[in-house]
Amino acid sequence: MKTGFFKVKTREEVWGEFNRFPPLASEEISLAQALNRVLSEPIIAKEDLPSFTRSIVDGYAVRAQDTFGASESLPSLLEIVGEVSMGETVSFELSGGKAARIPTGGMLPAGSDSVVMVEYTEELDKKSVAISRSVTPLENVIRPGDDFKAGQEVLRAGELLRPQEIGLLAGLGQNKIRAARQPNVAIISTGDEIVPIEREPRLGELRDINSHSLAAMVENYGGVPLQLGLSPDQFPALRKKCEEALDRADICLISGGSSVGSRDLTLEVLASFEDSEVLVHGVAISPGKPTLLVKTGDKGFWGLPGHVASAMVVFQVLVRPFMAYLSGAQLSLGEGRSVRAQLNRNVASKYGREDFVRVKIQEEDGNFIAEPIFGESALISTLVRADGLARIERHTEGLYAGELVEVIVI
Amino acid sequence: MKTGFFKVKTREEVWGEFNRFPPLASEEISLAQALNRVLSEPIIAKEDLPSFTRSIVDGYAVRAQDTFGASESLPSLLEIVGEVSMGETVSFELSGGKAARIPTGGMLPAGSDSVVMVEYTEELDKKSVAISRSVTPLENVIRPGDDFKAGQEVLRAGELLRPQEIGLLAGLGQNKIRAARQPNVAIISTGDEIVPIEREPRLGELRDINSHSLAAMVENYGGVPLQLGLSPDQFPALRKKCEEALDRADICLISGGSSVGSRDLTLEVLASFEDSEVLVHGVAISPGKPTLLVKTGDKGFWGLPGHVASAMVVFQVLVRPFMAYLSGAQLSLGEGRSVRAQLNRNVASKYGREDFVRVKIQEEDGNFIAEPIFGESALISTLVRADGLARIERHTEGLYAGELVEVIVI
Repeated sequence: MKTGFFKVKTREEVWGEFNRFPPLASEEISLAQALNRVLSEPIIAKEDLPSFTRSIVDGYAVRAQDTFGASESLPSLLEIVGEVSMGETVSFELSGGKAARIPTGGMLPAGSDSVVMVEYTEELDKKSVAISRSVTPLENVIRPGDDFKAGQEVLRAGELLRPQEIGLLAGLGQNKIRAARQPNVAIISTGDEIVPIEREPRLGELRDINSHSLAAMVENYGGVPLQLGLSPDQFPALRKKCEEALDRADICLISGGSSVGSRDLTLEVLASFEDSEVLVHGVAISPGKPTLLVKTGDKGFWGLPGHVASAMVVFQVLVRPFMAYLSGAQLSLGEGRSVRAQLNRNVASKYGREDFVRVKIQEEDGNFIAEPIFGESALISTLVRADGLARIERHTEGLYAGELVEVIVI
Repeated sequence: MKTGFFKVKTREEVWGEFNRFPPLASEEISLAQALNRVLSEPIIAKEDLPSFTRSIVDGYAVRAQDTFGASESLPSLLEIVGEVSMGETVSFELSGGKAARIPTGGMLPAGSDSVVMVEYTEELDKKSVAISRSVTPLENVIRPGDDFKAGQEVLRAGELLRPQEIGLLAGLGQNKIRAARQPNVAIISTGDEIVPIEREPRLGELRDINSHSLAAMVENYGGVPLQLGLSPDQFPALRKKCEEALDRADICLISGGSSVGSRDLTLEVLASFEDSEVLVHGVAISPGKPTLLVKTGDKGFWGLPGHVASAMVVFQVLVRPFMAYLSGAQLSLGEGRSVRAQLNRNVASKYGREDFVRVKIQEEDGNFIAEPIFGESALISTLVRADGLARIERHTEGLYAGELVEVIVI
């Protein structure tokens, strides 16, 4: 293993190490499976959307110029030459002084350029309609390509597919797409004091929280969790679990080992793989300083702190972006789930360290207020009470009550 | 069917109709299936979490009073009487002047009340340690019940289970829970001009976007979508689809029918069921005014506008809260996914109508800026470009550039 001298890295430096890993392969999936997946090739519109000029109201298709000057007291009288049916190609044409009944979504007849809403019309008989308000050309219509034009790149590779992108793909008839394979994420909990949740812990023992909260986070962010269970703090047992992870997963999370001896063991085990390279050994964030990232072949092994709140924070700010990187998506802290809130008390921080403070968000008079939740990061209750993580930048010694902070919603 | 006189309802009045429906039954599920489900009974801690006093650092368990006055120049000398192993019940006791080695997470020996971090200690030999900094009682330890105390209600019925709640349930050994059954949501698209996405539309026809975008939204918010496909605008065909929905689903979404004739058909079909009652016939929101809610037996039939953007807005502000209500969860517009942003241009609205304006959110100098996306609600591109819906309250005629608005992240 390559080791060498290690210094604590900033979060941005850790993100910078990600490009040492090859991105995940892509696979063809159906549109029904595409929600929340990451597109791995751009989508080009093969045709205009919509492909024809449509009315967006119920009314009469007309030539706008025939309505100019129309008013309630002096309506324009037009001859009705036909009726547009939904879903049908219109066979007739409009010339000067003519109109055609048209429903919302109907195709405009050739010769017409606008639609008068039914509210401003009155049929005098089957053959003539009085128009009491003028329209301008293109009023109440959408034209071919108003949504997207043929040849236009409508979605970029790397884009996360939300319901609206699914709708767009449907509109383009794209019922198969290529998306990044979902990362398989192995999860191992270590620590001689940890027992499976089914077992009644004896005095001095604790149930395994991290396997379950980390699996839920993996699932929430589009990965496939593989719970490999518990390993005692012994070299052969942990090495065996890591071999299994290497075999089955793209990413492996080893949590626990919050005592120095246990942390050393994780590093020792990972170092024992021939093609291992330690990329990160300590990160300038709090909580989460004793985080490890080891590259073994093409696989990423993360050593996470054992304290439950620390492990979840490291997942949020480092592992989640790593999963995004592997999928070809943009890296971000909050993925559109950031809010700006006002701290309601002073929060101290250490210069040179980026802090992620658990907060409860409340709304007061239309402002978001972030109330720091104090409590050890070994306590899961601090996260259950929290709605977000307030980020205190590296180059500050803290923030005063009343200052605005970025809060990642969790 | 009971009908009677209808007037347009406000969004809040529509939410008020929800309690005419019985909530969904609950079911027992395993912890591995519990993410993003809604808890249907409160969780009471059966034991203290943690169940014993633990160290949160590596160091020496001591009696705090033995360290009072200790400094680098005048350290306290304590006798080492043992070592705490992880996961083991400690068998020895500490008396005055004694210390025991302890790892992070280790159980404090009886008689000790605090832990000195290893950084402030020096072992002189196997039997004695010099302490160079004093600690106060309870320093660097967490006590039984610091997370949760036995008998305490730790989660309420109706709570949405995030990864941290999953972790908490694991910590309490709760590997089965009762959650609300996921709602089955049937989806029908109507309109003679709509064709399945696999088919090449002829001139005048359009591919079915709504079935796919609505199914994705149902999936995103914890429902099970059942795509029942397309129905032409004919009574027998639509009635047959509705019978299928009544059979298989808890909720049915009928989209399309944006023309007046088509809307009338949806109402006529729903009215033809004997135990139908029209609860909502028009909502004072934009887009989304021509929305229907009909109660048929215990099932909720929603008539949604045909325009793609309108249908998605109605889903977001009415159907999603309806799903939450049926699951026993709290109703909200944004579910923690609301931000406050500054409009970058004037937006007009109509007094008495609540508007949901598609916006793009950008960050400038640490502030969120909401840029309205103008464009017809028939265009899916307006939603693809949008990150959120800015809410313009009912009692205003619009907002000026620079004013703050609530934005629901979509």
